[in-house]
Amino acid sequence: MTDAIGRKRWVIPEGFIPPQSMINANRALLSHEAACLLNAGDKEAHVRITLFFTDREPVGPYKITLGARRTLHLRFNELSDPEPIPPGEDYASVIESDQPIVVQHTRLDSRAAEIALLSTMAWPAD
Amino acid sequence: MTDAIGRKRWVIPEGFIPPQSMINANRALLSHEAACLLNAGDKEAHVRITLFFTDREPVGPYKITLGARRTLHLRFNELSDPEPIPPGEDYASVIESDQPIVVQHTRLDSRAAEIALLSTMAWPAD
Amino acid sequence: MTDAIGRKRWVIPEGFIPPQSMINANRALLSHEAACLLNAGDKEAHVRITLFFTDREPVGPYKITLGARRTLHLRFNELSDPEPIPPGEDYASVIESDQPIVVQHTRLDSRAAEIALLSTMAWPAD
Amino acid sequence: MTDAIGRKRWVIPEGFIPPQSMINANRALLSHEAACLLNAGDKEAHVRITLFFTDREPVGPYKITLGARRTLHLRFNELSDPEPIPPGEDYASVIESDQPIVVQHTRLDSRAAEIALLSTMAWPAD
Repeated sequence: MTDAIGRKRWVIPEGFIPPQSMINANRALLSHEAACLLNAGDKEAHVRITLFFTDREPVGPYKITLGARRTLHLRFNELSDPEPIPPGEDYASVIESDQPIVVQHTRLDSRAAEIALLSTMAWPAD
Repeated sequence: MTDAIGRKRWVIPEGFIPPQSMINANRALLSHEAACLLNAGDKEAHVRITLFFTDREPVGPYKITLGARRTLHLRFNELSDPEPIPPGEDYASVIESDQPIVVQHTRLDSRAAEIALLSTMAWPAD
Repeated sequence: MTDAIGRKRWVIPEGFIPPQSMINANRALLSHEAACLLNAGDKEAHVRITLFFTDREPVGPYKITLGARRTLHLRFNELSDPEPIPPGEDYASVIESDQPIVVQHTRLDSRAAEIALLSTMAWPAD
Repeated sequence: MTDAIGRKRWVIPEGFIPPQSMINANRALLSHEAACLLNAGDKEAHVRITLFFTDREPVGPYKITLGARRTLHLRFNELSDPEPIPPGEDYASVIESDQPIVVQHTRLDSRAAEIALLSTMAWPAD
């Protein structure tokens, strides 16, 4: 049940942080974009994220540690080191881990009065 | 037409049960998260679901029986043994079966006045 | 450019035809569920769809012909032979073709005043 | 970090450009359909897109150049050569590249007062 599951490199070509949210949204309903990571194995995973843009060089790595037998629903909005991601700018991400993980991409967009959702499994690149 | 189709282990990294629903929602429009399972084969499938969390040990197995040539659109909200899943908490799931099955992940979110939907095929892990 | 592309068997575990639509919706905005098929090759494809349910035996085949170098965005709502699919009932589908095709699943839900969308690539089963 | 990642041929069976948008939408909220491309490698990629329709022959290629280590969130609405895509017509696309890329499909539909989103990884065909 705690076998390591997944791959060590995943790709999400679609990245975009909506620049607004509905008025008075709490954190759950704030517009956000997430990479949901699962480390089902018994070893801590060290994850490095590189971001790609339309007209400038890649930025990264953003470093994340994901405990054994843990999930992390990582919000790209909350990344800050080496630099925050500008809302409203198209980007893509490559997610590399030293342990097998599984990655799913989700966005909640609350720019309008109601929310919209999208999700897809990331692409296993190795 | 009734060949066994699919895999025996599937992963859904993104799990989240919206903590509210629109007022007066009937069951169809209640916020929910589902794993849609298809057992196209001629043998009953015995399914075990393990849940992973952000900062505590995995919980499970949740046990489900899926008849031959049947589909089950399982709502995570309705799981109760060994324990219900707290709404509003991030989780991930690993779904294991003794027969090949196919698994798709869907969420209906009716926290706002309108509904939002997401869906993706789960990740085949074996 | 007109190579045959894809697989001969695809699975969509999640099927559900929303039982209502917004008032006065035109066909484009009617609640519907679609399997989008692409036959990129030079031979006509003969497609057979079998539907699976929660508590009764499978129904089918529903037979579709898909021309060479053509796409068909097939609405499950509009299938009628051997029998229409009851709105509001959970189902799953297996789509088989004598030529390679690619299949994507989409739903437009207009039960509320606004629309919601989901989509995922179907699962290639062969 | 700048390895070439992905495949050279991708398929998106579901294509549809919503024929309207909400009133006064800015570009970000205009109804649109996008193929998000990532070229993580060190060589410029030359991409050719062919469109398939329900009842007429394929159109293309649409030619795109994608720089090394760059992403492009290509809106189908904005393609014009050899011809624009008629809004409201079902289509499908095959995307071919001379370098490995990864492709994700996204639609933002703002025909109603609120937006709806869908996304899925394209299907890697080679």
